[in-house]
Amino acid sequence: MQHHYTNDSKQTWWKWGNPEKSFHLKNDFPKLAVFLEEKWNKKLNEDFYLPDRITQLNSSSYSIDEWKQIFPNLRPDQISIASEDRIQYALGKSYRNSLQILTNEKIIAPDVIVFPEHTNEVAYILEQANHHKINITTYSGGTNVTGALDIENPLITCCVNMKKMNQLLHIDTVSQTATFQAGIYGPALEEILNNRGYTLGHFPQSFEFSTLGGWLATRSAGQESGLYGKIEDMVLGLKVATPNGIVEQFSFPRHASGIDVFQLFIGSEGTLGIITEAKMKTHPLPKSKKWVVGIFKSYEDGADALRQMIQSGIHPSISRLSDVQETKMLSLLSKEESKGFAKISKKIMKLYLKNTGYREPCLLMMQFSIKNYADEIASRVAKEFIKAKNGFNLPSASASNWHKNRFALPYMRETLIQNRILIDMFETVTYWNNLIPLYHQVKDSLKNNTDYFDKGGIIFCHISHIYETGASLYFTLMAPQQKDDEILQWENIKSIISNTIIKQGGAISHHHGVGKDHRKWYLQQLSPKTKKLLNAIKAELDPNNIMNSGKLFEPSIKDAQLHSLYPIV
Amino acid sequence: MQHHYTNDSKQTWWKWGNPEKSFHLKNDFPKLAVFLEEKWNKKLNEDFYLPDRITQLNSSSYSIDEWKQIFPNLRPDQISIASEDRIQYALGKSYRNSLQILTNEKIIAPDVIVFPEHTNEVAYILEQANHHKINITTYSGGTNVTGALDIENPLITCCVNMKKMNQLLHIDTVSQTATFQAGIYGPALEEILNNRGYTLGHFPQSFEFSTLGGWLATRSAGQESGLYGKIEDMVLGLKVATPNGIVEQFSFPRHASGIDVFQLFIGSEGTLGIITEAKMKTHPLPKSKKWVVGIFKSYEDGADALRQMIQSGIHPSISRLSDVQETKMLSLLSKEESKGFAKISKKIMKLYLKNTGYREPCLLMMQFSIKNYADEIASRVAKEFIKAKNGFNLPSASASNWHKNRFALPYMRETLIQNRILIDMFETVTYWNNLIPLYHQVKDSLKNNTDYFDKGGIIFCHISHIYETGASLYFTLMAPQQKDDEILQWENIKSIISNTIIKQGGAISHHHGVGKDHRKWYLQQLSPKTKKLLNAIKAELDPNNIMNSGKLFEPSIKDAQLHSLYPIV
Repeated sequence: MQHHYTNDSKQTWWKWGNPEKSFHLKNDFPKLAVFLEEKWNKKLNEDFYLPDRITQLNSSSYSIDEWKQIFPNLRPDQISIASEDRIQYALGKSYRNSLQILTNEKIIAPDVIVFPEHTNEVAYILEQANHHKINITTYSGGTNVTGALDIENPLITCCVNMKKMNQLLHIDTVSQTATFQAGIYGPALEEILNNRGYTLGHFPQSFEFSTLGGWLATRSAGQESGLYGKIEDMVLGLKVATPNGIVEQFSFPRHASGIDVFQLFIGSEGTLGIITEAKMKTHPLPKSKKWVVGIFKSYEDGADALRQMIQSGIHPSISRLSDVQETKMLSLLSKEESKGFAKISKKIMKLYLKNTGYREPCLLMMQFSIKNYADEIASRVAKEFIKAKNGFNLPSASASNWHKNRFALPYMRETLIQNRILIDMFETVTYWNNLIPLYHQVKDSLKNNTDYFDKGGIIFCHISHIYETGASLYFTLMAPQQKDDEILQWENIKSIISNTIIKQGGAISHHHGVGKDHRKWYLQQLSPKTKKLLNAIKAELDPNNIMNSGKLFEPSIKDAQLHSLYPIV
Repeated sequence: MQHHYTNDSKQTWWKWGNPEKSFHLKNDFPKLAVFLEEKWNKKLNEDFYLPDRITQLNSSSYSIDEWKQIFPNLRPDQISIASEDRIQYALGKSYRNSLQILTNEKIIAPDVIVFPEHTNEVAYILEQANHHKINITTYSGGTNVTGALDIENPLITCCVNMKKMNQLLHIDTVSQTATFQAGIYGPALEEILNNRGYTLGHFPQSFEFSTLGGWLATRSAGQESGLYGKIEDMVLGLKVATPNGIVEQFSFPRHASGIDVFQLFIGSEGTLGIITEAKMKTHPLPKSKKWVVGIFKSYEDGADALRQMIQSGIHPSISRLSDVQETKMLSLLSKEESKGFAKISKKIMKLYLKNTGYREPCLLMMQFSIKNYADEIASRVAKEFIKAKNGFNLPSASASNWHKNRFALPYMRETLIQNRILIDMFETVTYWNNLIPLYHQVKDSLKNNTDYFDKGGIIFCHISHIYETGASLYFTLMAPQQKDDEILQWENIKSIISNTIIKQGGAISHHHGVGKDHRKWYLQQLSPKTKKLLNAIKAELDPNNIMNSGKLFEPSIKDAQLHSLYPIV
């Protein structure tokens, strides 16, 4: 089945990540399996298997020779209409995408995949596509969970695959900057920097399979955003190929030289152009890392502690406060039981905590990156903020298991889906004064609007990505799938939560992005004049609306495209 | 002479700030006066006096009744064509502006001043002005030093004065945000926040007479940018009135909900619209502040120490590293000599330093804001970075004199100008690996290109506003004025320095902005496609090019304006 994944990205087309890595629910998470089977009173089975369904694909519009006429300057090996490639680069990793594949739904794949190697080649592809009014999707990691790659209408679509644009272009270790081609994967980028003693510091959960360009195009956040910021805080300059040519602007550490246009491309999700190169801040690797772990008697107490800590200038690189339910779920993920003395002392600890009011605790994990002695002190000061809210500091070992598996959870999600479990994540961000209210409103909206809980629905949440002014809420939902109505079931839940989020003043996304799945709510959050301004920018850069048509902006009209292509062939 | 300044802003029209405050060169800076007189071998006199030259003004285009027809919804007291108002709001505080006034050059003032009180009123004014194609300048503090308010052609111009838009609109002390009308002055804004225990943390040298809206429109930096960031790092959301309506976008601590359009207005210098409201981050007032002061044997050593310190995660709120010449000049500013034991111990210290290699030292002043114990430690760690580069830590008292007078220097500049001394500041920003080379290139460019040094020119510099990736260079120049050729002399020097800065990879401005004076070089730093994109944004928001015409973008054509106004009157 070699053709089902590319070696360079080690990704399979039909589920998360490396096909050689996967979990088995009962073997790998026995406690969770027992918990779910008891709660739902049903046997869980791996009911979905590797699809071998290239037949699911729509047929390609034109022959390879016809595509070569459209892109005469590309080498033959830079153009593919092979079914394996078309399906490999057709979809992201949203829950809907998973269901589309596993329920044998028709997949609208791009008609052709092209593999540029430098900025001018991307510009050339867009120029040709613009001339022929061919829709463009940009595939780099393909890890989005928002339907960002989905082709809405059956437009004639060319997928620009960025995997060959993976070079370090320039590094300046004095100024601590590095310029990369945007198609470089997280691990390759970190390896290049780590070998010189530096790090970018961007570690989203998709890290192993996502790329610099994807992070920028979607306004990504990494787990260590507390120290290094979100991707928009790390970028110093961009080169962007658009249907109207290459846009680049001077790059300075900061400036007062007019308007920053490159900001427009961050979060533009492939609708204005393709980010081809990015100049990024880098940081010396920390000397060490230190965990601070605590539990609180209530979520409110934990959130207050986090807020007061960051507003006092203490900045953990990672912070993650789980609610009662998530704290319980985390305990179900560990495989081994402690033994001997460790087991006894753990039991005594649990008993002590129960008796002192931590019967249903909320777990806080924070990581501090130690670069100097002041950082060491900061990690100690953080413990005082835990105590001040009646929190209890736990040994830091409690966090290492989570951290060790921090990139493994998407594999677990696949395993659950294959066991016919609905599992999805919903995230938002709001100001601190709205954070706990929004948390309750999201949970209540599900209770009040569906029979979700009656059917065994589980919702849990953590606060992460804390800022002085607010923080993000990250919800995970689980429920038994409604067989034959899997997508409808999910759409219903997605609607309820998204409606609540935007009604109650949260952003439709803090770091996943908009894509297809959030577009409806994104548009509700735009004021008419902002929409008009964005349309003018779109019209300037992408006059024929070929760039990821239907995302952020209105979709193109199908007929116009087909018509314009005919004369060539 | 009450009419020469407004009480609310305590500003005089013809020179910096409060007319009741001013310096006398020989009384207030006797050491400096002696130094300059000896260097230049001439007597310095206050040769310029308060101009009483309202006759300098161009005449106003239309009568007050005609203006009331253009803005029928405004109250009579919101419209003025009084000469006192027209001249008060005609110019900024650039060196050229000072010379224009003092050499009795014709001043092109706005034809009318309007005083809106809320966003909708600003939008109304712009709608009417757009209809009649009247050029708009926005006056808030009027402290720019770039000719940002200068009216290039004799366009018919309406000046929107923001001084009545000075209200706090919303404050959230939990999330630490505050929303203000943009015309609020620095001291009023800080007073409101300080009374609640908070600060914005933005202290540009213009602080006493500049406004929130001005800071945002020019991409301002405050002296404490090391802790609080530049103004673009502090803003969470904007409301902007444009000729095409009010643009506003959702505001979140961070998000992944598409493109941030409000970024476009930061640094737009009144060319796209008028920023009327801004939601800002605020911070708890620090518990204390602590100075760390050191001297280095070379500028290179000092710059290395600063760079290594900030790249290790130590963030002073203020940092300012003076070169040899600036260090000498600072010592000429103090009035009193030490006496008794203090005098003796100072002399011993000086002798010791001379004998240990600090004959011509470079002074570093850093301020740490202490919010927690880790900050206290950080200030101690900073001293290690000084030592590591053979620096010598001085008692912190050395910095307090500078800090006490930090808002007084613009008054001193006026005094020097009145003594027929050319004095101006030139600032830029670049990456660390280019910083010291750029510093030498700027100094060399003057040596090689003019007889500036032969005629006694003095140039000195400090590095401030340090970032992990780079820092700003702030040059001060002094020379005897070339009588009757004052403006030409300055233009020549400005050209030499600006050409060098952009040729050698510096930004044309780090925090002063572009205005009229930097426009030529700003345009050279824009790529053609970026310019085209900016033009499209301008065309969408300001289709008739009425907003500060001639700044950042091409100027309007004079005739078109006059023509379109005639039919009304």
